[in-house]
Amino acid sequence: MDARSIILKKRDGDELSSEELEYMILGYTEGDIPDYQMSAWLMAVVCRGMTDAERHETTKLMLRSGRVIRPEELPSPSADKHSTGGVGDKVSLALAPLVASAGVYVPMLSGRGLGHTGGTLDKFESVKGLRTDLSVEEFFSTVETVGACIAAQTEEMAPADGKIYALRDVTGTVASVPLIVASIISKKVAEGAESLVFDVKWGRGAFMTEMDGALELAAKLVEEAERFERKSVAFVTDMNQPLGNAVGNALELVEAVELLKGRGPRDLTFLTLLLGAAMLDLAGKADGIAAGAEMLKDEVVTGRALEVLKAMVEAQGGDPAFVDEPATLPKASRVVEVCSTARGYVSSIDCAGLGSLVCDMGGGRKKARDEIDRGVGAVLVKKRGEEADRGEPLVRLYLSGRSPADELAGRAGRLFTISDAPPAPRPLVSWIVTPHGAERWTDAVLPH
Amino acid sequence: MDARSIILKKRDGDELSSEELEYMILGYTEGDIPDYQMSAWLMAVVCRGMTDAERHETTKLMLRSGRVIRPEELPSPSADKHSTGGVGDKVSLALAPLVASAGVYVPMLSGRGLGHTGGTLDKFESVKGLRTDLSVEEFFSTVETVGACIAAQTEEMAPADGKIYALRDVTGTVASVPLIVASIISKKVAEGAESLVFDVKWGRGAFMTEMDGALELAAKLVEEAERFERKSVAFVTDMNQPLGNAVGNALELVEAVELLKGRGPRDLTFLTLLLGAAMLDLAGKADGIAAGAEMLKDEVVTGRALEVLKAMVEAQGGDPAFVDEPATLPKASRVVEVCSTARGYVSSIDCAGLGSLVCDMGGGRKKARDEIDRGVGAVLVKKRGEEADRGEPLVRLYLSGRSPADELAGRAGRLFTISDAPPAPRPLVSWIVTPHGAERWTDAVLPH
Repeated sequence: MDARSIILKKRDGDELSSEELEYMILGYTEGDIPDYQMSAWLMAVVCRGMTDAERHETTKLMLRSGRVIRPEELPSPSADKHSTGGVGDKVSLALAPLVASAGVYVPMLSGRGLGHTGGTLDKFESVKGLRTDLSVEEFFSTVETVGACIAAQTEEMAPADGKIYALRDVTGTVASVPLIVASIISKKVAEGAESLVFDVKWGRGAFMTEMDGALELAAKLVEEAERFERKSVAFVTDMNQPLGNAVGNALELVEAVELLKGRGPRDLTFLTLLLGAAMLDLAGKADGIAAGAEMLKDEVVTGRALEVLKAMVEAQGGDPAFVDEPATLPKASRVVEVCSTARGYVSSIDCAGLGSLVCDMGGGRKKARDEIDRGVGAVLVKKRGEEADRGEPLVRLYLSGRSPADELAGRAGRLFTISDAPPAPRPLVSWIVTPHGAERWTDAVLPH
Repeated sequence: MDARSIILKKRDGDELSSEELEYMILGYTEGDIPDYQMSAWLMAVVCRGMTDAERHETTKLMLRSGRVIRPEELPSPSADKHSTGGVGDKVSLALAPLVASAGVYVPMLSGRGLGHTGGTLDKFESVKGLRTDLSVEEFFSTVETVGACIAAQTEEMAPADGKIYALRDVTGTVASVPLIVASIISKKVAEGAESLVFDVKWGRGAFMTEMDGALELAAKLVEEAERFERKSVAFVTDMNQPLGNAVGNALELVEAVELLKGRGPRDLTFLTLLLGAAMLDLAGKADGIAAGAEMLKDEVVTGRALEVLKAMVEAQGGDPAFVDEPATLPKASRVVEVCSTARGYVSSIDCAGLGSLVCDMGGGRKKARDEIDRGVGAVLVKKRGEEADRGEPLVRLYLSGRSPADELAGRAGRLFTISDAPPAPRPLVSWIVTPHGAERWTDAVLPH
């Protein structure tokens, strides 16, 4: 067996055997196959695809490359949620304590932001003293004691994925459904949760810009999770405008706390309840999604979810004072209001553009080692479909002292399209995908 | 501009601009773009193709990367021939002196063999003392004085192609018509000949196993040569069995000398006259291919072509004694006859298999730095379509003392298929391609 022949076989569209996949994936992880052969092979996979059997084998190999936590090592029932990423997506920060509060353990290993999308860890680390670089033992004990923990993925788990992903990122080989599935599922299975809920985003602010692509990815994620005996469900949701109103680390954390206080933005609250209810349903704690959502609302109303958040923050070394006093979080030095120059309806908000703007303001990373400013960001005053008068604020920018305010405000204003007529409404949730197939989402499942 | 975006653009099947191609090709040659990005880009080119404009730009860039000899620097008229490679193809060794003898200068820069295909330089260097690593000045002066010179491609010419080809070879990205065309034409244009004749092989012993692929390559070679104002013609020829009878370095050189003495095998002689006549025709020395072939026959009959070969060998430091005494060339220590085990007709000879056999006997290289044994090889006694009695020899193997004779003879025997009925005849030449289009070859052009 040699790398060149395996590359040729995939280039010609043939199915690779388990042995051939092992030769490439573990060989690359161990340094026996050079970058230039791996990247040619990855591009052949992007162009020619993989069969379901190849994808499953690839996932197994990535899983096998590192440490695997078995579900029996964690308290039960347990569930986790994975989102394919977007702008303003602070769901995890509210979801983990909320679901734990309702009796399902949430062992959540998460990532950092890069480019226009933010990362849960960056947002969470706005809390003074809070650590996310926990050992597996610290992670276990926090989940057991508090019910939930949000920590950093360790390099011990699925190291093959880590090394391959770094190469994919610089060689234009990220866009492959089987490779994305193998990357996500190998990490999620290694983390040990019994049930998995996937939030697959589509639109201008998401990795998948078309709904069809997101739906295919959702179906393959559920199929692959089932193969590892994980209960799972996926939702295809809209990422053509930011989720909620806040974009930026500390600002998003505040919005997540507001949600747990019963005052979150409507779209963010709905999606968090939906994903959490699906976790309760899969874990056997609730009889269906609607019942799960009712349970979660109760955890909010009674304040119990907020108490779990405080306990989780304390267990991770952070100061929970921000929950009652958000002003103790990192703050921007200036606030600039960007106003509408016309009268009409907001018909679109350039979602990726807003993410990049916040990144350029210092709130995100262009390279993995960049330092970030946790106080800066943007808060939308008007969202898609809302009416705006001339001179009425559309968005508030939270800037650091050194930022060129006028230039940033100009860019922010151009992200909004104002039309005479209101835009056609677009559903937040489009599809629900279970092992039994995909169904169009309807409000009959959970009234919006 | 950055490599990742250019890779993504090609991955998505879009046409690259001149600037983007320059960024990749010259950037890689200068070491600014790493191997792993170049190989991902090359695989995207293999999978998505190139437009004619992209191919031309790529050829220009490869040409621009190194020294370019202008046709005016060489004596005129000049012509060269390029073959896409096969087994037993010793045409160049006879063709260069033959065409020079008829009055057209032949500045021929050639390559070495790798894998199952042999290389002209390896065959030519069977001559004691002969050098092919000439400086450009030595090359010029030999062409001018003798009329022909066969030397090694220098790294000064089209270095981008050299570096990119080495990467293609190990990353499964050789099989791309535009990349092959750019590689061949950039080198041939850099060498300065006014006219170019291409011999594009198809079949089991060739790089292109299907005739359609060879025809496409032939058409694109002629199209690209025209863009650089080179007169050109291409022939699509059969490589399902070795050309001539001999396979192996010194054995092939002897067969080429036999051709110049008027005693060459029928297929080899025909193809050499055809390609040479096309060179005379393009160079304006002959009025059509048939007239050109008559002129070349005359050069053989009068012995003038043989004298040019001797002069060329002497000019390159070699001892021309082998022309009259072939026994002075490197010799194998043993000859083994492999006989037919059945009575019938030879219906096929595994051409690539025979090339690999000779390579394994020590006559070729598996890696670029391998030493080769110039005396070993094989001489076919029966070719496709010939009748063989049980016990009659099919092929003679010329072995070194250490070779496992029984095993090699067994392998050689299995390369022949003997059938009860004679196989359908297969033409040696299938297509002739000029700038005006492709036409089926007929014996009306040159009687076989």
